[in-house]
Amino acid sequence: MRIARFSIDGTVGFGVVEGDELDVIKGHPFAAFERSGQKVPLDKIRLLPPTLPNKVVAIGRNYAEHAAELGNEVPEAPVTFFKPSTSVIGPGDPIAYPSFSQEVHHEAELAVVIGRMCREVPRERVKDVILGYTCANDITARDVQQREKQWARAKGFDGSCPLGPWIETELDPGDLTIQCTVNGEQRQLGRTSQMVRPIEDLIVHITEAMTLLPGDVVLTGTPAGVGPLNVGDEVAVTISGIGTLTNKVIKRG
Amino acid sequence: MRIARFSIDGTVGFGVVEGDELDVIKGHPFAAFERSGQKVPLDKIRLLPPTLPNKVVAIGRNYAEHAAELGNEVPEAPVTFFKPSTSVIGPGDPIAYPSFSQEVHHEAELAVVIGRMCREVPRERVKDVILGYTCANDITARDVQQREKQWARAKGFDGSCPLGPWIETELDPGDLTIQCTVNGEQRQLGRTSQMVRPIEDLIVHITEAMTLLPGDVVLTGTPAGVGPLNVGDEVAVTISGIGTLTNKVIKRG
Repeated sequence: MRIARFSIDGTVGFGVVEGDELDVIKGHPFAAFERSGQKVPLDKIRLLPPTLPNKVVAIGRNYAEHAAELGNEVPEAPVTFFKPSTSVIGPGDPIAYPSFSQEVHHEAELAVVIGRMCREVPRERVKDVILGYTCANDITARDVQQREKQWARAKGFDGSCPLGPWIETELDPGDLTIQCTVNGEQRQLGRTSQMVRPIEDLIVHITEAMTLLPGDVVLTGTPAGVGPLNVGDEVAVTISGIGTLTNKVIKRG
Repeated sequence: MRIARFSIDGTVGFGVVEGDELDVIKGHPFAAFERSGQKVPLDKIRLLPPTLPNKVVAIGRNYAEHAAELGNEVPEAPVTFFKPSTSVIGPGDPIAYPSFSQEVHHEAELAVVIGRMCREVPRERVKDVILGYTCANDITARDVQQREKQWARAKGFDGSCPLGPWIETELDPGDLTIQCTVNGEQRQLGRTSQMVRPIEDLIVHITEAMTLLPGDVVLTGTPAGVGPLNVGDEVAVTISGIGTLTNKVIKRG
């Protein structure tokens, strides 16, 4: 099932995407819900970020080839950092080029959307706390990341976390293709089977320390091929079985 | 004015503290508000974290002596990291010793509470976006911080951000004393005038990258004297002109 968040005529809601229509949900997808039967054509709505996370917990250097391309070793413990709620934008939303960077990179990633409040999740229960999967772009000010020891500004600026287009709830995430194109040209291509640590390990590692809330997002790392984005570029993240998340880079107004 | 958040008989609200009473506020302190005139004795209520931040943005190594005591230099750019909303606890709440660390430290800090949504704040407008000040303890799993390159787990675990006891709105933060005691014994003592970068610079630096929301918190760094906490310890942060934030360290249940 594909769950989208949308707005139409100033109203915001969730719906189930079927073909080129959306079936509006009564309530929200983080509890048992009913479909309303009210169908809306996708081309009449605006898709929003499919979740409004309280926090995004991201994992760095989880694909060996990507760690190597930036001159890093695969770390002993997963590199774990936050992207704040204010960094989240939706499909089609512009990425405003930040004023304090001259080198902004794309990083295509599989995003895990958490379905229920959880802490100290045992490995075998991880599947129970996941609502589904969506595409993410872990937009990074690479020059700032290299200058500043902690990555709050480099990876937490407004617009640095595009998510979407929807949450796919029935998907085996073990061997999906992740692709990133810029202006239609392929830049990144990898498979989730190349992750150094699988999703189960990441959720165990994170929830050993902290509570995850419904709607929170875990980013699982990016494959090799990261590179610069420029104003005017259209960047697209495509994951097999989910869909495509497209955003355009604009000059900050 | 001292603004506290409290609960009584299952109801949560804000109030203005005057002596040993609290005058309940109609609404919330992030907009113009009226006092209800309904007074409640402080010993009948439970004080909660005085704000529920969407995010806490924290600054590391902002006191030269503290940077030196951990063998670090004062960084060229402020070290900027996040503590998530799930790390926040209130005055009197227990700090549960995390299972994945054997060395948890106290770090007494002045906390700035943001009063309005803001981005790219010019230096001379910083005072306009601040609601007030409270005490914070940037509880840190020092061993994990040394092992893991990014500090999301070391400084973001549940209970790692005690805040309180209230927000003082009329205070010049330029030269306050910050003290930390453990079981009544002084461990840290510093003055906010020793900050490497003053509050104005920190807010400019953070909001160059990201939007701060009403209720968000900026932690301004800790003076020298950090050290270990053990189960059973009572840790207290006292800042002149604000008050004392006390928490007890307990075994995780």
